[in-house]
Amino acid sequence: MSSAIERLNEKLATIIDLNAATAVLGWDQHTYMPAGGIEARARQLTTLSSLAHEYFTAPEIGNLLTEAENAPGLDPAGEDAALLRKVRREYDQSVKLPAAFVQEHSEASSLCFDAWTRCKPADDFETFRPHLEKMVELTRREAEYLGYAEQPYDALLNKYEPGMPTRQVASLFAEVRDGLVPFCQKLFAKADQVKDDFFFTHWDHDRQWALTLQVLEDMGYDFKRGRQDISPHPFTTDFGIPDVRVTTRIHTDQFKAGLYGTIHEGGHALYEQNVDKRFDRTFLAGGTSLGIHESQSRLWENLIGRSRDFCNYYWPVVKALFPKNMAGVSREDYYRAINRVEPSLIRIEADEVTYSLHIFLRFELEMELISGTLKVKDLPAAWDERMEKYLGIRPDRVSKGCLQDMHWTDGSFGYFPTYALGNLYGVSILDTIRTKHPELLTGVADGSFLPLKEWLTDQVYRHGSRYTAGELIQRITGRGLEAGPFVSYIKTKYSAIYDL
Amino acid sequence: MSSAIERLNEKLATIIDLNAATAVLGWDQHTYMPAGGIEARARQLTTLSSLAHEYFTAPEIGNLLTEAENAPGLDPAGEDAALLRKVRREYDQSVKLPAAFVQEHSEASSLCFDAWTRCKPADDFETFRPHLEKMVELTRREAEYLGYAEQPYDALLNKYEPGMPTRQVASLFAEVRDGLVPFCQKLFAKADQVKDDFFFTHWDHDRQWALTLQVLEDMGYDFKRGRQDISPHPFTTDFGIPDVRVTTRIHTDQFKAGLYGTIHEGGHALYEQNVDKRFDRTFLAGGTSLGIHESQSRLWENLIGRSRDFCNYYWPVVKALFPKNMAGVSREDYYRAINRVEPSLIRIEADEVTYSLHIFLRFELEMELISGTLKVKDLPAAWDERMEKYLGIRPDRVSKGCLQDMHWTDGSFGYFPTYALGNLYGVSILDTIRTKHPELLTGVADGSFLPLKEWLTDQVYRHGSRYTAGELIQRITGRGLEAGPFVSYIKTKYSAIYDL
Repeated sequence: MSSAIERLNEKLATIIDLNAATAVLGWDQHTYMPAGGIEARARQLTTLSSLAHEYFTAPEIGNLLTEAENAPGLDPAGEDAALLRKVRREYDQSVKLPAAFVQEHSEASSLCFDAWTRCKPADDFETFRPHLEKMVELTRREAEYLGYAEQPYDALLNKYEPGMPTRQVASLFAEVRDGLVPFCQKLFAKADQVKDDFFFTHWDHDRQWALTLQVLEDMGYDFKRGRQDISPHPFTTDFGIPDVRVTTRIHTDQFKAGLYGTIHEGGHALYEQNVDKRFDRTFLAGGTSLGIHESQSRLWENLIGRSRDFCNYYWPVVKALFPKNMAGVSREDYYRAINRVEPSLIRIEADEVTYSLHIFLRFELEMELISGTLKVKDLPAAWDERMEKYLGIRPDRVSKGCLQDMHWTDGSFGYFPTYALGNLYGVSILDTIRTKHPELLTGVADGSFLPLKEWLTDQVYRHGSRYTAGELIQRITGRGLEAGPFVSYIKTKYSAIYDL
Repeated sequence: MSSAIERLNEKLATIIDLNAATAVLGWDQHTYMPAGGIEARARQLTTLSSLAHEYFTAPEIGNLLTEAENAPGLDPAGEDAALLRKVRREYDQSVKLPAAFVQEHSEASSLCFDAWTRCKPADDFETFRPHLEKMVELTRREAEYLGYAEQPYDALLNKYEPGMPTRQVASLFAEVRDGLVPFCQKLFAKADQVKDDFFFTHWDHDRQWALTLQVLEDMGYDFKRGRQDISPHPFTTDFGIPDVRVTTRIHTDQFKAGLYGTIHEGGHALYEQNVDKRFDRTFLAGGTSLGIHESQSRLWENLIGRSRDFCNYYWPVVKALFPKNMAGVSREDYYRAINRVEPSLIRIEADEVTYSLHIFLRFELEMELISGTLKVKDLPAAWDERMEKYLGIRPDRVSKGCLQDMHWTDGSFGYFPTYALGNLYGVSILDTIRTKHPELLTGVADGSFLPLKEWLTDQVYRHGSRYTAGELIQRITGRGLEAGPFVSYIKTKYSAIYDL
């Protein structure tokens, strides 16, 4: 007779396969699916997720889980316990929500998303307002169902960054914010120090594509176990450890979006591709939290990809591929242009310095919406005011303000913070490398990233969800997550670029 | 309270969605999946088909089916009855096979396929023999489980061409065979009448690809509800009526395979794209039998695509795209080269005339294997002997003989005949068009295929599985399936080309 955990893993494999199938259908939808397929695809995805939910929440899973948790000899610090902890968390999250609530949430999300797709281009907040109010109300109820230690927002954050209390995030973010806002004002005052207008000329599509493939290859992305395609919004998806795919977009009227979209997704993909094979088709495959995942995409995109060594190495490559665009652009010009900072209204266009401020604004506003101190009707004004406070600019319309993102339309409150947590985790990890293993970075100037990739594999990737984000960062850096290193990193790098 | 058939359709929608997901995973596997994904994909596909089987064979489906069949007022000639007939047939086929048998069959198929992939390149029949013996034995047992009227082979044929008795197929095929074998001998004797060596020079990949897209568009294939991609073996697949995809392959060392692969799959796709929308996500979507499906691919590929009018229309297009390849090739040269006949050992390389003979050989041998009059150990000799009898050539190795196809490795005995039935159905339909609606064909000379497509939609496509193959052909031609028209068609067309 096999053990409870073996029987549990066998049952869970069906759910993992269903989720993989869902991911394939999603990948296809965003890459190759013809327009006519959209309605049938939505039905197929609904069927697959309903089946996965039905299988996952079956009492049999709950019973096996309890049996495995209580099995004699279970090492609380071992892999089995880590697996059970992960399954328990997801199982409880699934069974705590009543079916009627899930149905209501799903329908309201569809309506809210649909309203958003119409209201954003029309800059019509009033029509969108009741839908968002409904999502806020549903999210509050969701938090009550899920439970929390200190405040409802804890329950939401826990969906994406398990074990991280709101209190801690608020404190970390406040420290970064208070360091960056005045620093940004100094940078903006010297905006004309850095030019990047040559990035906004005509850049050949096919050569950009070739460059993104080359950089992925250089990063150590394994094309035998993945591929890159084009989609309107870049993403990474996987159908098991041996098939991890990325997408990018290529705009011919600018240069940075394609290359840095690829490097960002490439960072996510290196994580997924290098999880220990033993974890394939188990709940321990896949990154441990969205924040840690984002730390890897941002480490490659920003900490490595926008570093002087990286830019120095690729400058001649870019010159060779795009001689006309790069005529007269020196190594220094290129590096500085890659790192140009400017206040922007749109999060996804923001640079390495201002990006986190876009997140803090959202984090603060969504906490206030959930706690009720901010009413939805007052959101646009609150948004614009805070944007002026942090970045010195005000949107002149809601499509460039509080209607720009889709995250809230399906109730993903608690998701935004993980982007900025990724920046903090990333710099903490980079600081450890700089202090203890500086030799890992020496290859960057020669386009040799493999020692770094191997170390990240050993420290982060191979563990999958074996450790929580908190455990992992403690193991790597020897301390908990801190805000200081990120602020220092930004100030040091950009003071040099902007001659402060 | 909804009716039994409504509740049944609702239950079946889950199975249809699961099958669509399976099809998406299959499409991806054969088009874009990286090599590393193969094992995980196999597991995902197994999980999806197990779930679909589990849902389909649930007693609830059987009960609803029986209840719907016995509902008062069911019109036995109506759509509901047609749907129930289709579901009943597939349901019975699924539940009649014991789970242990399905498992044994699946495992033996895997082993047999695996042996085939190794034995074919090694020309090693002896290692393959026990695997094929096992599949023959399992297929015999399958026929017993499924049941049959006259002979075990009926049960197998019924899986692919429902309602068509072996007796009828044997009689039709014998008539065609006895007409074609002596005719082929005459053609082969005048082989040098037709040259096609210019088709085996270097043909540009991208221009071939562009041509295949143009021809699909001309045929009326709807790219908003489908797309074409590259795969090693061309196929058509669908994920519902609004998303029907084709693939082709492009060889730069020859011309015909790419274009005619596309036209063939395009014929299958026109069928699936034009089923009445009311049938989407029901068991009446999709073609009614493999033979009728093949009639549509072959009607477009051969009866239209290799006709003089079609070749005349595309000759200047091909000349413009490939001026070097086509230098000095007249309209007449082109038409004749497209229709060159030669004895070949390989089925998938065979021309319009000899193709059916490759099928008759397989049909006869597989009937003998199943009835036991032919032993597997004697298969290679029997194959070679019959090949010599029908086509005047003998394979010098099993990879070019009885090991060339993979169909038998998973026990698909009864499948091959549908290819040749497609030729017979196709010519029967063409004869009706020529007699009653000759105006539908006048546009072909101008590349205008829409009147033909519309008529086929009205007569064939829109009905999906509403009628059996037998009913459909009776409705269209006013008579049952006959062999004579096909033999006449071949003799008339090729006597002219070869000056007989």
